[in-house]
Amino acid sequence: MDVHQLTERINALGIQPSAASPSHESTTPVLSYFFTPKSGSKHPDNPDHDLKLVVAAIEDAKNLGPAKALAQLVGLKDMRAVSANDLDKLLGRSRDQASPLSLPPSLAPSTLIVTSSSLSSASSLSIPSPSDPAQSLTLSHDDWHKAVLQLKQEGAALKEAEFLLKGVEPPKPAAQKAALAPTPGAAAATKGTAQAELEGQSGVQLGITVKKEQAVFGDWYQQVLIKGEMLDYYDISGCYILKPWSYGIWQEIQTWFDRHIKALGVNNAYFPMFVSQTVLEREKDHIEGFAPEVAWVTKAGKSDLEVPIAIRPTSETVMYPYYAKWIRSHRDLPLKLNQWNSVVRWEFKNPQPFLRTREFLWQEGHTAFQTKPEADEEVLQILDLYRRVYEELLAVPVIPGVKSEKEKFAGGLYTTTVEGFIPTTGRGIQGGTSHCLGQNFSKMFNITVEDPANPGGDKLHVWQNSWGLSTRSLGVMVMVHGDDKGLVLPPRVAQLQVVVVPTGITAKTSDELRDKLNDEADRVAKDLVKAGIKAKADLRDGYTPGFKYNDWELKGVPIRLELGPKDLEKQSVLSVRRDTGAKAPLPISDLSSSIPSLLDTIHHDMLNRARATFDQSIVKVEKWEDLVPALNANNVTVLPWCEVEACEDAIKDRSAKESVQGAQEDEKAPSAGAKSLCIPHDQQRWGSVEGKTCPQCGEKAKRWTLFGRSY
Amino acid sequence: MDVHQLTERINALGIQPSAASPSHESTTPVLSYFFTPKSGSKHPDNPDHDLKLVVAAIEDAKNLGPAKALAQLVGLKDMRAVSANDLDKLLGRSRDQASPLSLPPSLAPSTLIVTSSSLSSASSLSIPSPSDPAQSLTLSHDDWHKAVLQLKQEGAALKEAEFLLKGVEPPKPAAQKAALAPTPGAAAATKGTAQAELEGQSGVQLGITVKKEQAVFGDWYQQVLIKGEMLDYYDISGCYILKPWSYGIWQEIQTWFDRHIKALGVNNAYFPMFVSQTVLEREKDHIEGFAPEVAWVTKAGKSDLEVPIAIRPTSETVMYPYYAKWIRSHRDLPLKLNQWNSVVRWEFKNPQPFLRTREFLWQEGHTAFQTKPEADEEVLQILDLYRRVYEELLAVPVIPGVKSEKEKFAGGLYTTTVEGFIPTTGRGIQGGTSHCLGQNFSKMFNITVEDPANPGGDKLHVWQNSWGLSTRSLGVMVMVHGDDKGLVLPPRVAQLQVVVVPTGITAKTSDELRDKLNDEADRVAKDLVKAGIKAKADLRDGYTPGFKYNDWELKGVPIRLELGPKDLEKQSVLSVRRDTGAKAPLPISDLSSSIPSLLDTIHHDMLNRARATFDQSIVKVEKWEDLVPALNANNVTVLPWCEVEACEDAIKDRSAKESVQGAQEDEKAPSAGAKSLCIPHDQQRWGSVEGKTCPQCGEKAKRWTLFGRSY
Repeated sequence: MDVHQLTERINALGIQPSAASPSHESTTPVLSYFFTPKSGSKHPDNPDHDLKLVVAAIEDAKNLGPAKALAQLVGLKDMRAVSANDLDKLLGRSRDQASPLSLPPSLAPSTLIVTSSSLSSASSLSIPSPSDPAQSLTLSHDDWHKAVLQLKQEGAALKEAEFLLKGVEPPKPAAQKAALAPTPGAAAATKGTAQAELEGQSGVQLGITVKKEQAVFGDWYQQVLIKGEMLDYYDISGCYILKPWSYGIWQEIQTWFDRHIKALGVNNAYFPMFVSQTVLEREKDHIEGFAPEVAWVTKAGKSDLEVPIAIRPTSETVMYPYYAKWIRSHRDLPLKLNQWNSVVRWEFKNPQPFLRTREFLWQEGHTAFQTKPEADEEVLQILDLYRRVYEELLAVPVIPGVKSEKEKFAGGLYTTTVEGFIPTTGRGIQGGTSHCLGQNFSKMFNITVEDPANPGGDKLHVWQNSWGLSTRSLGVMVMVHGDDKGLVLPPRVAQLQVVVVPTGITAKTSDELRDKLNDEADRVAKDLVKAGIKAKADLRDGYTPGFKYNDWELKGVPIRLELGPKDLEKQSVLSVRRDTGAKAPLPISDLSSSIPSLLDTIHHDMLNRARATFDQSIVKVEKWEDLVPALNANNVTVLPWCEVEACEDAIKDRSAKESVQGAQEDEKAPSAGAKSLCIPHDQQRWGSVEGKTCPQCGEKAKRWTLFGRSY
Repeated sequence: MDVHQLTERINALGIQPSAASPSHESTTPVLSYFFTPKSGSKHPDNPDHDLKLVVAAIEDAKNLGPAKALAQLVGLKDMRAVSANDLDKLLGRSRDQASPLSLPPSLAPSTLIVTSSSLSSASSLSIPSPSDPAQSLTLSHDDWHKAVLQLKQEGAALKEAEFLLKGVEPPKPAAQKAALAPTPGAAAATKGTAQAELEGQSGVQLGITVKKEQAVFGDWYQQVLIKGEMLDYYDISGCYILKPWSYGIWQEIQTWFDRHIKALGVNNAYFPMFVSQTVLEREKDHIEGFAPEVAWVTKAGKSDLEVPIAIRPTSETVMYPYYAKWIRSHRDLPLKLNQWNSVVRWEFKNPQPFLRTREFLWQEGHTAFQTKPEADEEVLQILDLYRRVYEELLAVPVIPGVKSEKEKFAGGLYTTTVEGFIPTTGRGIQGGTSHCLGQNFSKMFNITVEDPANPGGDKLHVWQNSWGLSTRSLGVMVMVHGDDKGLVLPPRVAQLQVVVVPTGITAKTSDELRDKLNDEADRVAKDLVKAGIKAKADLRDGYTPGFKYNDWELKGVPIRLELGPKDLEKQSVLSVRRDTGAKAPLPISDLSSSIPSLLDTIHHDMLNRARATFDQSIVKVEKWEDLVPALNANNVTVLPWCEVEACEDAIKDRSAKESVQGAQEDEKAPSAGAKSLCIPHDQQRWGSVEGKTCPQCGEKAKRWTLFGRSY
């Protein structure tokens, strides 16, 4: 579709573009980057006009300096990368098809186009469309020139520049990161409107253009998610679209977890998404934790509501007034309900797909017991299910433990957690939490039963738990397993476990052989489906096997089976593992047993590798001066800790300050202090804590505690 | 819990209540009804005080005149029944434990208590707690008297009255209905606050206190839902809690439907619940249909959002901008996505559980095709799945057809529907709709592909469908099958299909025999579970078999198996069908085959009975004067119709007017006009329409069309 819009525009510019050319080898690709100058910037040629957009059109992404340098070059002070969403709105097309030629005439008078001088010497230029080569567009030198002049006639300012710019260093990752990151504390961000997101450099080439270990991690993460078709950005900041490739994984988690909690006697229910203000605010500590992020409905149609109504940030206060009503005697206990729903927390921090989103999907369990031991037992049963979701489904290792008092759930008694680890950033990440609420909420909401052991005596307040696991788990999975080629999906949740690709088809291949290969590939896939494996054959016409390999690697399919003419003769396929790239021939007759076993091997290998990395990245720190160097080397730490809250604050502050000294330019710096992640249940692992002292305050250590930078 | 609050209150009144008595036979039950007088009403004894509450305490519900008559008696002009929610708020307890004695002292000075004079002669009075007999409270005549006087001392006005009131007729159902129904157009309702709901007469006795055919149908429906534990009311009007008993049924529908749409190539996804205003309003006809009911988020925490954000009423405009982005070529077609979510339509009409709620659960499918025939085909495939959900899962017959132009989906090309029928009210009800949107949205959102048959030519706008089925289906199921004893659940979705109840246990029964019976009942249930049947044994201590029978009948369990000492000897159980009450002995050894077959028989019998009723209730009307009498006899009609929109309006208006003449007092009257329900796909059924004329306008009839009163 878009190529035609583009063609129309180019026709309007008086240019006849050549036919789409899927290969860019003989032409110079034009990569475009879009920036918003500081508000109030003026059009260089026409100071009566505001300048709203700066487009840099260059030959090679490597040559683009940081936005700051570019801004300097064009005489502007501050610029920031335009987010994909905003670009969509501005140009009416997605970023990966945006170029100077897609500027609508209305926008031209407020745009500055900076073109690389190397482009003017190119004999032919192409505007690549990474997601669909057939949508790429090739222009002759003359036509390109004509188009750019036409834009100038329409009012755009034009500037040609040397990239690399003289006097400007090629960007260091940290500096580039700082330059392209959204302006911290920008007014727009604090007012809840769309925030600029870090997307200036993605989407310009097919496949992942940045490396996981070297680039800005957020760039890599975004590219992997978008190109792997896990999600798409949405025109409301902090909200994302879960595409079938990720939602299917969530459904796998749902099915597994739902079965296991039903075995524990938990039933599903659905409570309304709305909460009245009085009910929401009944429990003080709890609401203090959530109040700043609560979204309020104040209007319906054109009428103002008499009282604003909140959208649930979590459902404790939604549900517990009814627990008070339903629980009339100890015979009504335990009451165990769960719901699968979405909740809203209108965070003003930078959103991040799956990890920090304003609406997210989760399950929330809410249970009530007569006694504390029953509640305690369930807390751990659920926590173990969370551990198993991560380890047995997502192949992600986690460490179960209890949160410090400071980090526990607002209004609860204690919080247990499974903590994961993102090796690339060296940060801990909370994977799921199972809270014992104690009797705090039952006292607030008056949930009592008569004590069967003491009829007529004091009433018993019930003991309550709540526990939740969200789609954040999908983000952790992607971050832990993905690589430079894209997603690497753990086999047990992948929506496609095996893809069969016919190979060795050339121009010389007879139609008969081609059909045979396709038929056999299809048959192999269908036999696998019969054996309960999620498999399909990629028989798309007009794509090379290489294109298909890349495509499915990008999407993370665990096993590729290649089937060529020689394989057909030998009744064999070549299996290629997504996680390791390892290749091995497999007899076709055996696939229904060899593939399930290979999928299992892949699962265990992925889990074991990730576990080895996590294990190696936990540094035992017993002297303060070892802490920040360990963090800076992308580790988390385990400390013999005193468990005093003031000391926890001090650890965070001191480590943050020392981190800043070490890395002035790092965007992480402001939040690079170490927080307590959890006090692991398995204390044996690090030997006896007896006689150790806390490395921060020197007081007697109570338990080994994980501290680290975190999400 | 509540009995203790009540006891405390009574103690505070200086009264020693006797122990709870589950049997009310020797005492006079006190039934309480709560009304709000017109705002500005004055306390009869103290004109300085506003009167906020009128409590009528009487012996027998039948003796309560309409609120109007009661109001007249106490010298007040307008009163309306207090909703359960409001009562909860006022008294801090649920309605079914509310009585004059539960008035908080703070409320007494603004309350008028009207007691039946018959109460003053009762020797002993009881305040029944229908949901838990153990919570009932018995008072001597003196204590009751003391309590009432104490309330007077606290400031309450007191009035004793004769019920039946002289000069006031015993209420006719219609008049009673009108009196207890919420004041139409009350200011509160139009401002979006809690609306009074029709609950004045429910919840005062264990079991269903009103008969399906005789009482106000809404009362019966509410009692069946609440006592059957399908749902509970929520403190925000129009929102309800789906309890496990109903949510489990929804999950059965989900599982079945999800499997079937996946077989059609539909994938699940999740789009955000929020829509920006510009996107929401992009399609004009569509938004006109929804705008008055859209809920708007305008605040987050304490900050105002820069622009208000809507909560999706449906997701066409949420999703289609991304369809425009994702569909780049005909190879991306068809695109078939579905989501399971909740949507919000802030209706100001009377809410009704499942049928009209401000938030509801549904699935919404959104698909895009290259050609119209493909879209047309899918519309019918989905419609047939909807028919099967009703008929094959819920045992509810429906008639598939197409909506008139007037009734079709806003912004779509045509709408197909499955229409159900509620015999008790004689109203049609829309069961689920499958829309062909044509190219209207694809033109608005610019969703195009290159025509593969005409490359470089005009672009093709895609053809789109959307289709949805909601939890409304559960309401239809309850209304169609329920009876005077409560819910009757269709076996294929019931969360418990078989309950085994040990019987014949008396005081004389030996412990050994008692244990044997319990063990055998448990074994029978567990064997059924092994055979894939949802079964359990009710081994609750301290409840009679009779209590258990009623309890499970109320909850609609399809089969009860009674196991007594003689059955044990014969290794047999007595099966009792919930739908017919039919009893038959079944050998225990055969249950794993006899029960599935009995469940199947029950399903088919329920469906066939409901279908026979529906069939008999469709009156062929070819002369205008037959229309309203048919409607008034609780039928829908089928007309040879001209399909002219103005004629449809005329049918509604004329039939409404004639209905009003016939039933001045009927609350239905204002909406009793006949709307077109659908043009059935099966036209053969009523013979040829050739040569017939439309009974309203006399023009040539095009097709047989169902017209009726509807929900």
